[in-house]
Amino acid sequence: MQLEFLGTGSGQPSKFRNVTSIALRLLDERNAVWLFDVGEATQHQILKTTLRPRKVEKIFITHLHGDHIFGLPGFLSSRSFQGADKNEPLTIYGPKGVKDFVQTALRISETRLSYPIEYVDLKEGVIFDDRTFQVIAAPMRHRIETWGFRVIEKDHPGELLVDKLRQENIPSGPIYGQLKSGKTVTLPDGRTIHGQDFIGQAQRGRIVTFVLDTRPNDNVALLAKNADVLVHESTYGSGEEESKMAKAHAHSTSVNAASVARRAHVDKLVLTHLSARYIGPMVKDLISDVRRNFSNTYVARDFDVIDIPFKKDSNESK
Amino acid sequence: MQLEFLGTGSGQPSKFRNVTSIALRLLDERNAVWLFDVGEATQHQILKTTLRPRKVEKIFITHLHGDHIFGLPGFLSSRSFQGADKNEPLTIYGPKGVKDFVQTALRISETRLSYPIEYVDLKEGVIFDDRTFQVIAAPMRHRIETWGFRVIEKDHPGELLVDKLRQENIPSGPIYGQLKSGKTVTLPDGRTIHGQDFIGQAQRGRIVTFVLDTRPNDNVALLAKNADVLVHESTYGSGEEESKMAKAHAHSTSVNAASVARRAHVDKLVLTHLSARYIGPMVKDLISDVRRNFSNTYVARDFDVIDIPFKKDSNESK
Ligand SMILES: [Zn+2]
Ligand SMILES: [Zn+2]
Repeated sequence: MQLEFLGTGSGQPSKFRNVTSIALRLLDERNAVWLFDVGEATQHQILKTTLRPRKVEKIFITHLHGDHIFGLPGFLSSRSFQGADKNEPLTIYGPKGVKDFVQTALRISETRLSYPIEYVDLKEGVIFDDRTFQVIAAPMRHRIETWGFRVIEKDHPGELLVDKLRQENIPSGPIYGQLKSGKTVTLPDGRTIHGQDFIGQAQRGRIVTFVLDTRPNDNVALLAKNADVLVHESTYGSGEEESKMAKAHAHSTSVNAASVARRAHVDKLVLTHLSARYIGPMVKDLISDVRRNFSNTYVARDFDVIDIPFKKDSNESK
Repeated sequence: MQLEFLGTGSGQPSKFRNVTSIALRLLDERNAVWLFDVGEATQHQILKTTLRPRKVEKIFITHLHGDHIFGLPGFLSSRSFQGADKNEPLTIYGPKGVKDFVQTALRISETRLSYPIEYVDLKEGVIFDDRTFQVIAAPMRHRIETWGFRVIEKDHPGELLVDKLRQENIPSGPIYGQLKSGKTVTLPDGRTIHGQDFIGQAQRGRIVTFVLDTRPNDNVALLAKNADVLVHESTYGSGEEESKMAKAHAHSTSVNAASVARRAHVDKLVLTHLSARYIGPMVKDLISDVRRNFSNTYVARDFDVIDIPFKKDSNESK
């Protein structure tokens, strides 16, 4: 599981930061990639990575501002052009208007996609749930309907330690299944075997939270609680002037992001959606300022890949 | 007057060629820039040039395929963001659907532009005419309604040769105006002066023709007649296989372009809209093949700037 930042700027593209799109790479977990927002030229950014549009299984749209959606028609068309077939559908989770925007663009351009799109209107709570992942949405506070997302990987149960069973001369058979489910079994030779002694360490699923384009609000901490990574917008840095501008434009500062990261006991904070005013040394200042409040903070740059490993102490912390 | 190629690929962006957009730089002529088609990430390409979105006065759309229009919403939004004001309107000439596409994108994203847009539906004939330029549109033959454009600069009349008048001791006054309009004047000292002897060389206006995404058809030669530059799509190169593919996809080959350039007595042929299959040595082959048919041919690359000078023999050729 990795985050790959395809665009880390705000409002409009600059030479150094494209508008927003973030890929959550779930190749090991489900042989798929999820995109969070698709600003203009997301497909161009993808050309410079190893990501393959066909692998994109789900797209989550936080809100309908242009810098978060104008890359959708082109991305969807190229995914078709590159041979995604009817067995490779794509689901778009977003505010209601996203379907109108995409369908109008496809209709006007007479684009017929080679695969089906399912549109899911966002609502508060669980918006997706299967064997391996769950996604929760909650409303944010911006100038337009906006949503944050909490992506929860389901826990991986411990594996049956077959080598250890063999070492102790426990013959394979239906009792392996009983042991795996944690039962206590009596063998033909009279030994009593406890399943839990032969089950490896469980791995707690990881949690990634996406909070883009919002004023601070109570839902942020709820979505971010104990997250492995909180991806948070930081259109502005610290300082009084910045604070005013964030308020005026319904955005957050780096200070807002650090404060909620601390409150929600997040492991790592990754700031994105930076105003184009932050270049060179100003980015360094922004990082050192925020690290005083929350040390494990990073400022994403375009094409950064951030690995999200399993926690080593996953059994204890469970 | 220069052409600046912002995207020279076809269908979808590749690493080396973006999708179509061509800027006609008319900074000396009218302190303005015109765009022909606006594929996705045109605004990103502009960031790498000296072009300023505020200077873009007119946009001409050949047809509504995604690779020619998906950059419009982002370009228009950023032009607003960068401070174009209500005295800097923009006119979009295109097939009817372009308004629906742009207005839907702006409505859904709640984008309020700082300047007005006028939409002009294309029809055959003169679509724009003022003191310095005229633009003619004619239908092309593609899978969707498609138009070609002929941009005609009005002739520059010769200047009054004031230095020559002074050399011959002809006193300034109202007669300068009469001489400039070509009249014959008798001076107080009895000399008879012919205006035409004191008027510099007139400069014939230049002609640039844009033919994108089409099968060969009779209107191409009409639009291209005696043009200084013919910009012509060449999705495919020469060869039987290419010829078949061009037909199947309603496109042209380099051979088609060269043949109409010759027939229309064009000065220079610039090929664009190349399939992504043409890279490296294949482009060289494509050029040398077509130069056998029409020697003054160039294959545009992204960011190429091609100057269109006045013709030296403009008086005679008039
Ligand atoms: Zn934004
Ligand atoms: Zn095209």
